[in-house]
Amino acid sequence: MSSTYGESLKLSIFGQSHGPAIGMTLDGIPAGLPVDFDKLQQFLNRRAPGQNDWSTPRKEEDRPEFLAGILDGFTCGAPIAAVIHNNNTRSGDYDNLKDCPRPGHADYTAQVKYGGFQDAAGGGHFSGRLTAPLCIAGSLCKQWLEEMGIHIGAHILSIGNDTFDRNFNQVSPEIDRIEINFPVLDPDCGEKMRERIASTKEQGDSVGGKIECAITGLPVGIGEPMFGGVESRIAQIIYGIPAVKGLSFGEILPTGSENNDAFLMESGKIQTETNHCGGILGGITNGMPVIFQVAMKPTPSIPKPQQSFSLRKGVNQELVVKGRHDPCIVPRAVPVVEAAAAIAIYDMILGNTQTSRRKSHGIE
Amino acid sequence: MSSTYGESLKLSIFGQSHGPAIGMTLDGIPAGLPVDFDKLQQFLNRRAPGQNDWSTPRKEEDRPEFLAGILDGFTCGAPIAAVIHNNNTRSGDYDNLKDCPRPGHADYTAQVKYGGFQDAAGGGHFSGRLTAPLCIAGSLCKQWLEEMGIHIGAHILSIGNDTFDRNFNQVSPEIDRIEINFPVLDPDCGEKMRERIASTKEQGDSVGGKIECAITGLPVGIGEPMFGGVESRIAQIIYGIPAVKGLSFGEILPTGSENNDAFLMESGKIQTETNHCGGILGGITNGMPVIFQVAMKPTPSIPKPQQSFSLRKGVNQELVVKGRHDPCIVPRAVPVVEAAAAIAIYDMILGNTQTSRRKSHGIE
Amino acid sequence: MSSTYGESLKLSIFGQSHGPAIGMTLDGIPAGLPVDFDKLQQFLNRRAPGQNDWSTPRKEEDRPEFLAGILDGFTCGAPIAAVIHNNNTRSGDYDNLKDCPRPGHADYTAQVKYGGFQDAAGGGHFSGRLTAPLCIAGSLCKQWLEEMGIHIGAHILSIGNDTFDRNFNQVSPEIDRIEINFPVLDPDCGEKMRERIASTKEQGDSVGGKIECAITGLPVGIGEPMFGGVESRIAQIIYGIPAVKGLSFGEILPTGSENNDAFLMESGKIQTETNHCGGILGGITNGMPVIFQVAMKPTPSIPKPQQSFSLRKGVNQELVVKGRHDPCIVPRAVPVVEAAAAIAIYDMILGNTQTSRRKSHGIE
Amino acid sequence: MSSTYGESLKLSIFGQSHGPAIGMTLDGIPAGLPVDFDKLQQFLNRRAPGQNDWSTPRKEEDRPEFLAGILDGFTCGAPIAAVIHNNNTRSGDYDNLKDCPRPGHADYTAQVKYGGFQDAAGGGHFSGRLTAPLCIAGSLCKQWLEEMGIHIGAHILSIGNDTFDRNFNQVSPEIDRIEINFPVLDPDCGEKMRERIASTKEQGDSVGGKIECAITGLPVGIGEPMFGGVESRIAQIIYGIPAVKGLSFGEILPTGSENNDAFLMESGKIQTETNHCGGILGGITNGMPVIFQVAMKPTPSIPKPQQSFSLRKGVNQELVVKGRHDPCIVPRAVPVVEAAAAIAIYDMILGNTQTSRRKSHGIE
Repeated sequence: MSSTYGESLKLSIFGQSHGPAIGMTLDGIPAGLPVDFDKLQQFLNRRAPGQNDWSTPRKEEDRPEFLAGILDGFTCGAPIAAVIHNNNTRSGDYDNLKDCPRPGHADYTAQVKYGGFQDAAGGGHFSGRLTAPLCIAGSLCKQWLEEMGIHIGAHILSIGNDTFDRNFNQVSPEIDRIEINFPVLDPDCGEKMRERIASTKEQGDSVGGKIECAITGLPVGIGEPMFGGVESRIAQIIYGIPAVKGLSFGEILPTGSENNDAFLMESGKIQTETNHCGGILGGITNGMPVIFQVAMKPTPSIPKPQQSFSLRKGVNQELVVKGRHDPCIVPRAVPVVEAAAAIAIYDMILGNTQTSRRKSHGIE
Repeated sequence: MSSTYGESLKLSIFGQSHGPAIGMTLDGIPAGLPVDFDKLQQFLNRRAPGQNDWSTPRKEEDRPEFLAGILDGFTCGAPIAAVIHNNNTRSGDYDNLKDCPRPGHADYTAQVKYGGFQDAAGGGHFSGRLTAPLCIAGSLCKQWLEEMGIHIGAHILSIGNDTFDRNFNQVSPEIDRIEINFPVLDPDCGEKMRERIASTKEQGDSVGGKIECAITGLPVGIGEPMFGGVESRIAQIIYGIPAVKGLSFGEILPTGSENNDAFLMESGKIQTETNHCGGILGGITNGMPVIFQVAMKPTPSIPKPQQSFSLRKGVNQELVVKGRHDPCIVPRAVPVVEAAAAIAIYDMILGNTQTSRRKSHGIE
Repeated sequence: MSSTYGESLKLSIFGQSHGPAIGMTLDGIPAGLPVDFDKLQQFLNRRAPGQNDWSTPRKEEDRPEFLAGILDGFTCGAPIAAVIHNNNTRSGDYDNLKDCPRPGHADYTAQVKYGGFQDAAGGGHFSGRLTAPLCIAGSLCKQWLEEMGIHIGAHILSIGNDTFDRNFNQVSPEIDRIEINFPVLDPDCGEKMRERIASTKEQGDSVGGKIECAITGLPVGIGEPMFGGVESRIAQIIYGIPAVKGLSFGEILPTGSENNDAFLMESGKIQTETNHCGGILGGITNGMPVIFQVAMKPTPSIPKPQQSFSLRKGVNQELVVKGRHDPCIVPRAVPVVEAAAAIAIYDMILGNTQTSRRKSHGIE
Repeated sequence: MSSTYGESLKLSIFGQSHGPAIGMTLDGIPAGLPVDFDKLQQFLNRRAPGQNDWSTPRKEEDRPEFLAGILDGFTCGAPIAAVIHNNNTRSGDYDNLKDCPRPGHADYTAQVKYGGFQDAAGGGHFSGRLTAPLCIAGSLCKQWLEEMGIHIGAHILSIGNDTFDRNFNQVSPEIDRIEINFPVLDPDCGEKMRERIASTKEQGDSVGGKIECAITGLPVGIGEPMFGGVESRIAQIIYGIPAVKGLSFGEILPTGSENNDAFLMESGKIQTETNHCGGILGGITNGMPVIFQVAMKPTPSIPKPQQSFSLRKGVNQELVVKGRHDPCIVPRAVPVVEAAAAIAIYDMILGNTQTSRRKSHGIE
């Protein structure tokens, strides 16, 4: 049940970093939904590397080929399947990862779990490359949510522990103001962030950061109690993104009187004055924007020598990780966070049998 | 799919705060596992209210009655079912919650989602009371994990934003040093926390906080890639606990060279010098303690008047929440966090088909 | 994942034959659905033993107590939970079942699977008694289907291999003509069936038979392709009923020209002239009645001596099954088949996101 | 949840008959299992058309390309993905299926369910062609079961209602005696079956039949109670095969004294004298061969004119199905039944946490 997500939809992601192809299947989608392939490609390009200073110069062509489920630009009700063929051949760069694992990566845990049979090249199935098929599924869900007036946007909240963008205005996030390539709310802060990444790169190191995401236009009533709450469902998929180690919703103020969001009824419409709850009460959307923050650790692959060991020799051993790697994965992870959120939300909307079924029962 | 959790085991939680009973079913458990009912009761008592200053004086008897699945003190392979009968009768305290929802609670979202048919008394199915059956399931899983040498402990990390316990020593958490009733590592800090709660109570307010949990004794290799990773599985259940709004694993340091945990092989045993990754690499346990922090918002029920509205009248309206409520839910949530972690971990161990199946294939 | 069923709803059944209680939880049901408790009790009475010649004189009171999920006669959106308390105490009748298993029962397979820890009394979790909670869930689903104009009825198709009721008229099943207590279409045949059961009982033997079930009023388009087809979903739950060993849909004629159901459009309404496909094409309902037949083996518990063995002594051993048992389980299984069908169909209707979602997308 | 199967493994099948490719993903498989690609191809060839008299002369190349999950001939623990590229271009043969549906096919039900957006060419996702990826997954599982000494074989039990092969000797099925191409136990009967198919073909008609399948070498204790029983799990996947309308296990004799399988302990080994229960008691394997029969309707596509209607014109209309179709699908369905059984059994073995976990708890 590892690489599968969803209740009403079923997303299944496959592939290894240096295998023949990576891809995804997405089952349970209604027929008749339009697919904008240009929009999809633009979305994938936001994740692709090699486009700027702060990411690896590796050039991957992330052009998905759709094998099933879409006909003449519309979903046809059958499972959607798409693949991205890998051009990278399995190189010698990763030859000794099974013997001498990279700190901070899944090399060692995979070695034990899979008994040495795992595909270690490029991190195999644990590679960040697997977020590309996640973005295919996410971009589709995002398009279909937009049709319903639901929008998802994210920005870089911090790089390292010293450069911070300002938070979304929680009552009304400025999703439209976000630049695509290095999305921040405060351009000055964005400049400092870029400098921080550049200086980290010069030092042969990497740096982590935080991403903040907002979902607007949600109706009241999405999400289920307990383990099916919006937080639970978003958390399960967000933590499936490599390097994510933290997640929080809204903003907690110390005391109840500060933290509770006062209700405000205006012209029959119910809102809250503040949005510390991040748009979720009891696991269920309250009509305010859903807002959450994702903390990502620094890229573990750094040029500096690190301490590892040799399984074969049974001794400690210094390791220098070869290859070219992102000094900061955060900017490229922004669309991945949006994609994950889109999948979770679209799944919950599909599975929301409360309102629609009362209607079919003639109760509402 | 709301109140159900698990892949290999299936936990289903039912009940409303003021209904006849709350309870749980737990399917998929191997036969022949011993059950220590005294230990279970002690565990439930840690969650029960009315035992001290910092919790509500309501007196609930949380004595589970087992209806199925346990015979002569051992699991019998059939689904386990247990109920706790409610003594609280449905009182008038909550009569107007459907019309005038409490800020910070699920009253409003439930009203919209369930069209007014929800059981509003005491928060209904959204009540923190539902963590009692979670603790039944969790205490059982915790006992069975202990048999395998896996221990779970948690302490109060902070109350409000000003009193902080020190973090677990991440390489070797002092699970044994934790007091049961108000678990902290630093007794002086515990004293300050108690004072903070008391002063909050006096001010007619409530206060939130953080809990830190550690799981020791885990073998390497538990957890699945992507959405089945340890973080994802723990997150899904932890966010099922009312009032949880944040979750983080280990500790992120700003740069890769600081954050990466250097491997250290000693007498053939592989460890890491630090444990910033919180015992998880690529979603899979690496043999170090799994450590995570849970952020809880302040109890939304406070004596102070708050701003709400009347659905019926269509106007804003001030609300005073009646009844007696915990000024701080954090101390009582400590065993709930442990229970949730125990369920998630036990489920992952049950579902770990990698090693055992290679063995059955004669490969290992 | 044993005693759990459903995709959009989650049914979980628990209990052992002689345990404190049996029961069920049913999650995922929309709020606001009415519950007719009298109708429910009447339905359960059809399954109850001790009411006539052909069933065991054991007297069980199957009065469900609802613990959760229903408020003032309506579902409240929270998981529904109900229990039936057992009055039968664990007697010595079954003491040696772990050592000397009954042929045709699960005694031996349970002994091996659960290593002797299983609850053997009365068959434990494998007892036909567990169909009572299935009938609780099924009766609820049946009521809600009836609100939508969907009706489910079943009759005894055969007893043994020699008495056969006529088949449902497949194009328009006479669901209304079925008597409740011993439902047949042809009263003369029913008389012969009763005689067959009585003579079998006199001979100290038991007899099996077949049940035919029809579901009318279904819209076109229920069911999903492949493993989510109506046949697959009904089969999974029907085979969960003890003693079921066969299941078929509609009626297969030898050649395509005979078997294909010709379409017939009349006043804009599309039907088929015959209904050999049993109302299902490609796993999806075609608007004609869904019709299926269930084959049940004879009750394995018979007074005649049978050949078994003693696990402890390691030798063959004759066994005489004590207690009073149904000479024919088929009549009591009729409502169980209806209940199972109701649960499967209601689940599929809840999960049918195709039409409703196209609507919410503004496409239809 | 349509085209997805499995509890411990997750099989997802995608593709449309005339789309770019069909394929499957298979998640949850242990690492280190060997894959024999020649054996896989031979298995797929048994299903492929165009090899003999009784099947369609269409020539499909069913050569799977593995995109993920297998490295150097062994599973690597990551999800397995394989595709078969389609060479058939979308032709005009099927242009009017959306307007004038073929009797016995899913054209009409798909049209209503998917609102006209479905891929109708060649039956789209409902085509029998989708059994090819099922056979990929099934052949892999079959290979891995064979490593454990578990063998699966099937033969043609009947063609039409007049030619019947003899049943498997239920106590010891002669799996090895089955010819590969047109598998029967009695060669004379096989000859008659071939003649029956040939004469049906000459008459411009098609004919159905039955397949019997046996699984030998199973340990006692596989399968879960109620809805997780072996019958339920096999039924769910078998009914996912197009044209299957009936399924039965073992053989039901009329009375309990005839039908019960007497136990027989010989040299410490426990068997039953007969095997009317088809190797399953209480949903759990009893160590005897699992035996079941599958009934398939005649191919609905026949050259004879049939009565349908025109959606657009709103009138009845005669239809002549073009293209070349199997006069009898049964022979080609034999490996598909074996594949489905292999997947279900392998899944249940993976998920059997009872024995292995008692071991890990140190109880056994």
